[in-house]
Amino acid sequence: MQAIILAIGDELVLGQTVDTNSAWLSEQLSRLGVMTRYHQTVADDSAAIAAAITWACHEAELVIVSGGLGPTDDDLTRHGLAEAMGQTLVLHEPSVAAIEAFFARRAKPMPQANRIQAMCPVGCEVIPNSAGTAPGLKAKLDRATVYVTPGVPREMVVMWQRSIAPEVAAAAEQGSSRGVILATKVNTFGQGESAVGEMLGQLMRRDRNPKVGTTVSGGVVSVRVRSEFPTAGEAHEQLDDTVRQVEATLGSCVYGRDDETLQAAMVALLRERGLTIATAESCTGGLVGAMLTEVPGSSAVYRGGWVTYTNEMKVSQLGLDAAMIATHGAVSQPVARAMAQAALEKSGADLALGITGIAGPDGGSEGKPVGLVWVALAWRKGVNARRSEAGVDALRLDLSGDRQTIRDRAAKCALQMTRYFLIDAEWDDLLWGRREKG
Amino acid sequence: MQAIILAIGDELVLGQTVDTNSAWLSEQLSRLGVMTRYHQTVADDSAAIAAAITWACHEAELVIVSGGLGPTDDDLTRHGLAEAMGQTLVLHEPSVAAIEAFFARRAKPMPQANRIQAMCPVGCEVIPNSAGTAPGLKAKLDRATVYVTPGVPREMVVMWQRSIAPEVAAAAEQGSSRGVILATKVNTFGQGESAVGEMLGQLMRRDRNPKVGTTVSGGVVSVRVRSEFPTAGEAHEQLDDTVRQVEATLGSCVYGRDDETLQAAMVALLRERGLTIATAESCTGGLVGAMLTEVPGSSAVYRGGWVTYTNEMKVSQLGLDAAMIATHGAVSQPVARAMAQAALEKSGADLALGITGIAGPDGGSEGKPVGLVWVALAWRKGVNARRSEAGVDALRLDLSGDRQTIRDRAAKCALQMTRYFLIDAEWDDLLWGRREKG
Repeated sequence: MQAIILAIGDELVLGQTVDTNSAWLSEQLSRLGVMTRYHQTVADDSAAIAAAITWACHEAELVIVSGGLGPTDDDLTRHGLAEAMGQTLVLHEPSVAAIEAFFARRAKPMPQANRIQAMCPVGCEVIPNSAGTAPGLKAKLDRATVYVTPGVPREMVVMWQRSIAPEVAAAAEQGSSRGVILATKVNTFGQGESAVGEMLGQLMRRDRNPKVGTTVSGGVVSVRVRSEFPTAGEAHEQLDDTVRQVEATLGSCVYGRDDETLQAAMVALLRERGLTIATAESCTGGLVGAMLTEVPGSSAVYRGGWVTYTNEMKVSQLGLDAAMIATHGAVSQPVARAMAQAALEKSGADLALGITGIAGPDGGSEGKPVGLVWVALAWRKGVNARRSEAGVDALRLDLSGDRQTIRDRAAKCALQMTRYFLIDAEWDDLLWGRREKG
Repeated sequence: MQAIILAIGDELVLGQTVDTNSAWLSEQLSRLGVMTRYHQTVADDSAAIAAAITWACHEAELVIVSGGLGPTDDDLTRHGLAEAMGQTLVLHEPSVAAIEAFFARRAKPMPQANRIQAMCPVGCEVIPNSAGTAPGLKAKLDRATVYVTPGVPREMVVMWQRSIAPEVAAAAEQGSSRGVILATKVNTFGQGESAVGEMLGQLMRRDRNPKVGTTVSGGVVSVRVRSEFPTAGEAHEQLDDTVRQVEATLGSCVYGRDDETLQAAMVALLRERGLTIATAESCTGGLVGAMLTEVPGSSAVYRGGWVTYTNEMKVSQLGLDAAMIATHGAVSQPVARAMAQAALEKSGADLALGITGIAGPDGGSEGKPVGLVWVALAWRKGVNARRSEAGVDALRLDLSGDRQTIRDRAAKCALQMTRYFLIDAEWDDLLWGRREKG
């Protein structure tokens, strides 16, 4: 079975909002063995919506539309669907009651505007929305089935999981004579895309099945593996085999699969070892802490940290020597090391990170350009079998890009460095990092 | 002039990566008065790429393609373009030299794989890439001009700014007989979309020009204003007029326009007043600090903070009373207040935020469910004319959604609360917030 995904909204076509729904839906579809042909964003214009739905129904058996079901006058997806079906809109009374109940639970009256959300084209099925006010819609057009969900990601996700996924899974199963497609992603950090491509070599041949490809996003080089076979068993077996080959070839820069983030991989490793960590951040301003605490259960391993954005805070809160900061500068190896060591001591954690750098756009100088970041890791005695003594080590990073890129890469390098420490890999094998005296 | 934007990559169609390039390009185009008709993502398949380019060239005068110019075997955009043009690929010697020079600057030899990046279809112009290895391409097909850029956002942005935008601006100017389209976004936080829609009322009529629409993303309700008139002067004047009406109607929940974030608005306000701030975070784990330090120049107003993720850290680093934490629980109004006050005193800042809550998925209980967050703001004497004494105030937030949503909304509520303090607005006027005793 093949699918086409449409995302409706002027804000998407005008670029004021990034469409994340379509990617999420594609990923869900691919898990059910449904191949997405393309995504298209469509403006808030009922004729354009009707045309896109009509075309998509010619091209694929499954069409999923998100967005344009809101309560305001620019929400026209239900009108576009009615137009594509050659039907009119009618009021669906049970939906009015459901929307009123939604507001009642919040002790608020239903705004009159929300009434439009209970309108649906004649001949449509209504899909209940347990996370918001706009019900979804289901229609048959030509040979295709069209599902329409709200654009708010959370409502779309719940509606997909409760109502749409089970139906699509059943339909995909029935139509599986055309084969099964499975996909997995192997995530790496610390090597460039062409280096990863060269390591993979013949694994990336275009005529190979499973097919292997690479993508870069946020400094993470992901290796996509896509397995297409007549039976699910074969597709799984071949996928697993290729994924294992990719992981064995790439070694320690691989940190996880699919949606797993570097921070999730690191938190899992720390939990496994029963170790805790703390952070002392300057240029990243709390980003490493925010990344770690994104991971459910991170409270078992993360004690907390300091954001010492000013030199004064470095001295008063971490106890750094003001004269040392004056001598070497706030962005220097000795300051990064001292930050990590102070965080270790003050928090009682087993490991601690210290990060100081120049994220830009201002603040660079000839000797210390924008993008220079020092990352230090301090550890207690006995936390690592190979490095049995307590210690601290630092890497100099030379990063490029804008402020956000520099901060993001610095935080990720700090996480990967910690991961390398935990798995006993060499941590100066990071694309942008090197060890340096002083 | 109208444009169509294509984004190439299996990772996009399979949903492993979210396409952010197309939104960014649309926004740039709209600033030049070019209207985007739609975005489409296309798989790494030269026939599909060729078909999408051919169709787009029938439908619009300007086609912008990003992605698929990498050095690996799954990068097939140059092949697809050649197919659409009916041409073959040839080696472009100056590009080989440029790629070799790129690696030489990094003291590395050029991997053989990168040589493919110097191939281009006969009849194409080559666009230099100053931020990476893959040159861009420019071709004429039918009446349309096609630009192809790398998919790496940073390289795409630089190539757009240096080479493509000036040409598109000139072409848009020439073709401006068909009118000028300008768009602006007014960003609000703290009200629901339907409440914003009701306040806007007649401003949202579909037959109005400038047209007004709303979108929600990350809890931010944005009001899009799109002005389409024969001349740039009129389009500007009408746009400004409607934007002013929208801002006047919505009042203090409006924090900025276009790309301005809540944190940028808050940093600007603090700078204006010459005030500084500090943070003490528990459930947000450094997210508020990370948001504030995203803003260039935030070092003038942000002193730093504490991530006291464990109770131990709350006691040892912020000096909270362990018995008080035991009595009220870590997630309680007294703890949030004490965190804010301790951060104020220890940092020497003028204002300080304290945040404690339950982000989930675990850790909730009947009395304290997942989504309960306390945010406190403490301030020094004299920082606000109306509230002249030193003080501290707290709001209880009842948030819903997953861990990331709860953390994000809690951080944004803390920022909006601070902004309301600075502009003397009522801060319990936040959708999810209320004042409560104890």
